[in-house]
Amino acid sequence: MDKRTYTVIEGGSIITPQGFRSGGIHCGLKKTERYDLGAIVCEVEATAAAVYTTSAFQAAPLKVTRESLADGKLRAIIVNSGNANACTGQQGEADAYAMRATAARSLGVAEQDVAVASTGVIGELLKMDCVTSGIEALPPRLSGTESGADDFSQSILTTDLVKKEACVSVVVDGKEITIAGAAKGSGMIHPNMATMLAFMTTDAKIDQASLQQLMRQATDLTFNMITVDGDTSTNDMLVTMASGLAGNETLHASHADWDIFAKAFTYVCQSLAKAIARDGEGATKLVEVLVTGAISEPSARAIAKTVVGSSLVKSAVFGADANWGRIIAAVGRAGEPVNPDNVDIRLGDITMLRESRPIAFDEDEALVYLKGDTVRIFVDLHNGEGQATAWGCDLTYDYVRINAAYRT
Amino acid sequence: MDKRTYTVIEGGSIITPQGFRSGGIHCGLKKTERYDLGAIVCEVEATAAAVYTTSAFQAAPLKVTRESLADGKLRAIIVNSGNANACTGQQGEADAYAMRATAARSLGVAEQDVAVASTGVIGELLKMDCVTSGIEALPPRLSGTESGADDFSQSILTTDLVKKEACVSVVVDGKEITIAGAAKGSGMIHPNMATMLAFMTTDAKIDQASLQQLMRQATDLTFNMITVDGDTSTNDMLVTMASGLAGNETLHASHADWDIFAKAFTYVCQSLAKAIARDGEGATKLVEVLVTGAISEPSARAIAKTVVGSSLVKSAVFGADANWGRIIAAVGRAGEPVNPDNVDIRLGDITMLRESRPIAFDEDEALVYLKGDTVRIFVDLHNGEGQATAWGCDLTYDYVRINAAYRT
Repeated sequence: MDKRTYTVIEGGSIITPQGFRSGGIHCGLKKTERYDLGAIVCEVEATAAAVYTTSAFQAAPLKVTRESLADGKLRAIIVNSGNANACTGQQGEADAYAMRATAARSLGVAEQDVAVASTGVIGELLKMDCVTSGIEALPPRLSGTESGADDFSQSILTTDLVKKEACVSVVVDGKEITIAGAAKGSGMIHPNMATMLAFMTTDAKIDQASLQQLMRQATDLTFNMITVDGDTSTNDMLVTMASGLAGNETLHASHADWDIFAKAFTYVCQSLAKAIARDGEGATKLVEVLVTGAISEPSARAIAKTVVGSSLVKSAVFGADANWGRIIAAVGRAGEPVNPDNVDIRLGDITMLRESRPIAFDEDEALVYLKGDTVRIFVDLHNGEGQATAWGCDLTYDYVRINAAYRT
Repeated sequence: MDKRTYTVIEGGSIITPQGFRSGGIHCGLKKTERYDLGAIVCEVEATAAAVYTTSAFQAAPLKVTRESLADGKLRAIIVNSGNANACTGQQGEADAYAMRATAARSLGVAEQDVAVASTGVIGELLKMDCVTSGIEALPPRLSGTESGADDFSQSILTTDLVKKEACVSVVVDGKEITIAGAAKGSGMIHPNMATMLAFMTTDAKIDQASLQQLMRQATDLTFNMITVDGDTSTNDMLVTMASGLAGNETLHASHADWDIFAKAFTYVCQSLAKAIARDGEGATKLVEVLVTGAISEPSARAIAKTVVGSSLVKSAVFGADANWGRIIAAVGRAGEPVNPDNVDIRLGDITMLRESRPIAFDEDEALVYLKGDTVRIFVDLHNGEGQATAWGCDLTYDYVRINAAYRT
């Protein structure tokens, strides 16, 4: 295998890297028979790191997970959907600790080696009888097979229409390393808060601080560059476990193969992030905004996110309307320096604005392009070297329908 | 009249203060017969000030208006709708200057005493033949009557469903001062950018620098605290003309009656701003968010705007859903310091959260309240003395319909 690239593994999943089992069941938190409790278990103590929501309100599970991750090691992640265990006060905290304790006992690992995640209703206490008996029933349902991974991926979903998985392999020190992830996230819906959660596994041997830093950097380029409706939940969390079973020399920032490993890792994150954006509530299209020529990368990011998050741009995409006026208005309000006389805007291959002057284009061609399921908007600011990409989706009637639903 | 209050004048308009005439006509910019050209003229040289959009892209008319306002004096404002004259390059700039020149000639005033405003399509050049002959036809249509004011108010609308006017009187130095305004703004729609424009008249005699500062302060509390869909246009402008004909001692920040004048002025701005929010595209309700107990006023403003601008909160209001989880998530992502354990959330009279704990409430009562046309959300952060109010509207199917419309 060419050392300088990574290979996408179609159909790979969180158990493809060496050393992992996973599974999911229905324990009773969701009304229907849908899976609502899952776990990923590593057969050895994995090097681990996490990135959390920046919301001022941190759900109970995050506190427990931070504690478990203080030593940078995990054996297992226990996740439930159907209830976010957020805004649940001291009882919620106690319940999150109890989840961890039960999982540790049930899986035969130490409590501080277990991370906890929850997603779903805000402000309601967990049905702990269901959770406890569910966790106790989990072990026989955990396996190193695709079917167990699929069950896990299903068990973490809330309003998502599809599961989201990604897997790549890359060569480090002549050894094949696999990196995989499973994520959920779709937007927010009452009564469920469709938090963004992502769980990644790899068999790479890696220094914990380097893993933590890589996760932060990859998150900033991917998960933090998506917007469905601009809302940040109280539960967002990304956790990675690295089993080390691939047998490479410990990866760290100065390792000869660090760059390609980081690229592969970031690819998995990007793949999951785009899948989340595409599955946005009510979405019919993935929207990708690529900004170049900004004064800096942070500036490009701010502009890309503003454009892809604009309700007017999103509505225009839904309506298959090649509306550069709304795009430029979004660029203008991002609070970033722009030269208003030298902006290019392109929709796919179709240039609509050059040096801030409208360019005649084929409206039929634009319509056909906009009716596809992936819309790319290119903005060149000719003002520097900063570039960034952000992802989102269109704003549709279904978004309103989903989010305006009366509670029953 | 009690000097310490102001009196709302129902049915008052921009010609109620002494010294103003106004009118509107159809000159041919809009497809239907709707009025699309209007003017306000002051019979004397008025002390004047303006506040402009912060967009990085400033439409051509703003440049011309800034020039005219350099000396702090105006005789007239000429406005067209149906075309924003934005992103129109050098030709657009020339057209904006030509509009000013024609208006000056037609109205018999100096060019530098004329302000220019435009709203509508972005990126298309003005039909100058229509504009020129329209301006030449305007003078006989200008009057000091309600009917002329109504024509003006109509001529500035784009996607608005209703005109927006407000008028108050207040006593300064024993003289009755009147302050009035006409505004337009509804959101953005293709092909029109429904810019926010507000024109205010008063017969107060006032120091120009004090007027400028008052406009800035009033704008920060009102027009800058509304959001329909989070977008800022390239054309937003507020202009005030003060004729001085009321005969008071020149108002300035240290004048004994300054405070009550400022309150009255701000009331007019607030009234117009709320009317704009209520008339948001597709809106069925005005949403008002009152934040108290923030660490500072700027912090309270940021939080109030985040809550009222949240797609999820807006959808919940549309669906008459008493969803405090979405409100608290919006508070949490505003990037402001909050104590997560001591937040109260109230919907009208109905407390839903106290000290961050859910409070049982009457769902039927909440439903009735939410089905009304004004929804007030109260957030108390118990973290300081900062307070602020922001206004917006619900997110509805009609918003999507209006903004996703295919261009014809």
